Amino acid sequence: MSKVHNFSAGPGILPADVLKQASDACVNFENLNLSLLEISHRSKNYENVMDEARSIIKELFEVGDNYEVIYLGGGASLQFAMVPYNLLSENGTAAYLNTGVWSTKAIKEAKIIGNTKVIASSEDKNFNYIPKGYEIPTDADYFHITSNNTIFGTQMKSFPKTSIPLVCDMSSDIFSRKVNANDFSLIYAGAQKNMGPAGSTMVMVKKDALGKTGRKMLSMLDYQVHIKGGSMYNTPPVFPIYVTLLTLKWLKQNGGIAWIEKINQQKADCLYNEIDRNSLFVGTTAIEDRSHMNACFLTTKPELEVEFDKMWNDANISGIRGHRDVGGYRASLYNALPLESVNVLVDVMKAFENKFA
Amino acid sequence: MSKVHNFSAGPGILPADVLKQASDACVNFENLNLSLLEISHRSKNYENVMDEARSIIKELFEVGDNYEVIYLGGGASLQFAMVPYNLLSENGTAAYLNTGVWSTKAIKEAKIIGNTKVIASSEDKNFNYIPKGYEIPTDADYFHITSNNTIFGTQMKSFPKTSIPLVCDMSSDIFSRKVNANDFSLIYAGAQKNMGPAGSTMVMVKKDALGKTGRKMLSMLDYQVHIKGGSMYNTPPVFPIYVTLLTLKWLKQNGGIAWIEKINQQKADCLYNEIDRNSLFVGTTAIEDRSHMNACFLTTKPELEVEFDKMWNDANISGIRGHRDVGGYRASLYNALPLESVNVLVDVMKAFENKFA
Repeated sequence: MSKVHNFSAGPGILPADVLKQASDACVNFENLNLSLLEISHRSKNYENVMDEARSIIKELFEVGDNYEVIYLGGGASLQFAMVPYNLLSENGTAAYLNTGVWSTKAIKEAKIIGNTKVIASSEDKNFNYIPKGYEIPTDADYFHITSNNTIFGTQMKSFPKTSIPLVCDMSSDIFSRKVNANDFSLIYAGAQKNMGPAGSTMVMVKKDALGKTGRKMLSMLDYQVHIKGGSMYNTPPVFPIYVTLLTLKWLKQNGGIAWIEKINQQKADCLYNEIDRNSLFVGTTAIEDRSHMNACFLTTKPELEVEFDKMWNDANISGIRGHRDVGGYRASLYNALPLESVNVLVDVMKAFENKFA
Repeated sequence: MSKVHNFSAGPGILPADVLKQASDACVNFENLNLSLLEISHRSKNYENVMDEARSIIKELFEVGDNYEVIYLGGGASLQFAMVPYNLLSENGTAAYLNTGVWSTKAIKEAKIIGNTKVIASSEDKNFNYIPKGYEIPTDADYFHITSNNTIFGTQMKSFPKTSIPLVCDMSSDIFSRKVNANDFSLIYAGAQKNMGPAGSTMVMVKKDALGKTGRKMLSMLDYQVHIKGGSMYNTPPVFPIYVTLLTLKWLKQNGGIAWIEKINQQKADCLYNEIDRNSLFVGTTAIEDRSHMNACFLTTKPELEVEFDKMWNDANISGIRGHRDVGGYRASLYNALPLESVNVLVDVMKAFENKFA
């Protein structure tokens, strides 16, 4: 079967080895002669998966016992509600940075739960940059940011310093680069962009951030319930968590975050250099805020899009049409995407210029 | 590899053909040369999966366009909260039948949301029967029941008639027998017991039951948001839904509910007959309420449990230790379990009697 260069924005590419192991586990999991899909989540074998899936997060983030890791269903979208539900006190205020569609959705849910203030926004320019120079209120319950904006192709290159709890939606760039996780009170990420398949969401939270809202809480929305249950308060999304663990082990075994950060830098440099060099393409975002995970660009001659589409299709490239809010193209460069695939895309861009410029 | 007789209470046994197809999709989904785990949920191929996964539910339940089907993450446990959140009006009352651990949890969540009344309960006898002869208030917003009680091995053999909306948690016996789905306003089920792997939950709801609470709702907890989004308001649990579809197609292609109901009756008869005949075993529930999905039983000589455990282990039987709330044994007889496996268990029970009685 010919190789597909998978630039999908999410669910996104996973390592071939991981997919093979996932496939095997569907018919015979750890030589039990049973599929992973039909065994109890309370079996010893799966409890080990869950323990490892939680501990590898803390290992990769280099945090200590003051943090807890849980896995939940419902995607990051459910976290847009759970974060304020668990952290925003009845009379408190939540502070948000609005950098795109996902931030906007997070803000919408927070407003349903309590007082919510947008500190800064880049909506004025269709979210093509990351706001800077804003002031974070010191009396808010927390400050919420989105580290990478999948749709608009921007990424925070540094994180704000603040005395209040910092909360981050890292769905689309988690474990793609070194961050100081100890600066955050809560990090969450839907798995399906950079660490696994769709269907599970990881939340890492500082223990002392919880239990302060005074709210009587629904069990399934209460982080403390899930922490107490070791992410098994209810039946967890067994298979998605397993594949997430496989993906994180792949990362760790290959050299961890230091290793992948270097490769991600190479991939981003390779593609952005071509976008800037090629007379037929232009990037859509502020250069200093360009995402290393999702590179958004347009053709300078939109009438030639059909031709370009034909060329990358012929090269077995998949998933680079831009989101409808931006148009043009978006190449997602998640951890599992090899540099080779970026080279193929760049070659197509060059051939396109040679033919039509 | 030798065959394991999988009596797990959930996640439970799935058809071997389904597991093979699931395994294949992990490496190459529908000849796309891509894994199902790494393609966009917005791709044509996956949109077809989702459409089919929703329509097959309505087909199997024989309901019309006045019903909507959605798939969500979070398990049935999240539905314990979402049902009252969507159906219980600010000044209304919800009525519940308490038949076990899951009902009790559903009641707990409903009480957090609004006025909740338990109409009848079998807690007085550790839930070993289904209450009868109770009166359902005609002014409640809905009446909630649990059709099958996995832990205690009881099952409602008929459903109450009422003028108010009837809501049913069918997690552990959905599609195991014919029910008149049109009598229900809402049916929900975690997939992992009788229709798929862990990680997705199906909700079928009558359209006219929604939008009446006056509550300002969080998006992810609002059925109408998910209906409008075609279960794609956020990234759905892609793989668990796909395997659920495969399992339901397996059911349909083999003869549908009429076919499986007959087999389930044979399996239940086979096992309960042996429990009643064998001097070393005794059932734990009221005979008229015995579940066809989860058969709970004890040895009359508990000191011999070690011997029995050894014997069924040697016969490649898996997953029949009872829940800690009941003890003894629980054999789950979900749709995918073949009669052959029940015969093997019965043979072991007979051999056990021959040796020790």
